[in-house]
Amino acid sequence: MADASLNALIEALRRLPGVGVKSASRMAFHLLQHDREGAQHLAQALQQATTRVRHCSLCNTFTEQEVCPTCLDPQRDATKLCVVETPADQAAVERTAAYRGRYFVLMGKLSPLDGIGPRDIGLAKLFERALDGVVQEVILATNFTAEGEATAHVIGETLKQRGLKVTRLARGVPAGSELEYVDLGTIAHALVDRR
Amino acid sequence: MADASLNALIEALRRLPGVGVKSASRMAFHLLQHDREGAQHLAQALQQATTRVRHCSLCNTFTEQEVCPTCLDPQRDATKLCVVETPADQAAVERTAAYRGRYFVLMGKLSPLDGIGPRDIGLAKLFERALDGVVQEVILATNFTAEGEATAHVIGETLKQRGLKVTRLARGVPAGSELEYVDLGTIAHALVDRR
Ligand SMILES: [Zn+2]
Ligand SMILES: [Zn+2]
Repeated sequence: MADASLNALIEALRRLPGVGVKSASRMAFHLLQHDREGAQHLAQALQQATTRVRHCSLCNTFTEQEVCPTCLDPQRDATKLCVVETPADQAAVERTAAYRGRYFVLMGKLSPLDGIGPRDIGLAKLFERALDGVVQEVILATNFTAEGEATAHVIGETLKQRGLKVTRLARGVPAGSELEYVDLGTIAHALVDRR
Repeated sequence: MADASLNALIEALRRLPGVGVKSASRMAFHLLQHDREGAQHLAQALQQATTRVRHCSLCNTFTEQEVCPTCLDPQRDATKLCVVETPADQAAVERTAAYRGRYFVLMGKLSPLDGIGPRDIGLAKLFERALDGVVQEVILATNFTAEGEATAHVIGETLKQRGLKVTRLARGVPAGSELEYVDLGTIAHALVDRR
């Protein structure tokens, strides 16, 4: 396929996570042959999201506002702060309906092997948030992977030293798994049994 | 994730073939958190490809020109026309370096179950092209799937009736497989043994 625009499209699609050259070619072919409207739509959505979406000043999740709807919700218990790695993990906890406190979304996890340290995820912002004087308990809901556990450990040690109550999701969640893929019942149970 | 732009991006990504809601969420998260430049780049590539890429008036493949570079190449044997389903299949045949004739790219295959008939793929355009008086042999290189075989059958019967020599890639290609994933040696062998 010697076409410049087509090759550029395939290369651009390859930057998506989990997309190799074969998948990228199939996607480009599909869009150009069967769904040009979808391609235009995706172009606009990308443009709009990259210009509009920023981080909530309180919980760090993606939002178009200065403060996200979850943080603005007055019904939520401001004394509890649940720390998760990603918005998808937050959504998983929300779906259990077993938690009505606030959140902090790290947008990543500590990963020394990948060169991801405390400054690359929102740890300073989290500490500031957790030590606002209102939060009394921080619930660590990072994934039960090696990196998620290490991240929970670092956060937990720091916040305990500052006098906060720190709990961790109970080990009802199978070790080595990622929250996003865990069934609701298990997450709900782990929330109740947090230690 | 209650954010409108983010949800719109996830929905738009789901229109890509092979991308479910989990993959789409991961892609959106990755782009917004780690690669906004890549997202902008993809938006531009989509915009450019959908506005610039059209079909070669001779062989029907994707191109930005009226006639594609392959069709313009004077070194190629104009008496031979190789019929493939997609540009990826054409690329697979090209990589064998065992064929130096012309191509016609159907951009699909007959698939009655999916409602794809002769009018939905380039059959009329193919017949016009094959019966230009210069082409002497049409090599059917559609995939060796049920649909590819049916497509080859329909094309072959029509063109034989019009007095053209019609050959099919030899059965060196494993039945049920798709050209794009077949090793070069097998395709090259099948070209030599075409019947
Ligand atoms: Zn927030
Ligand atoms: Zn052409």
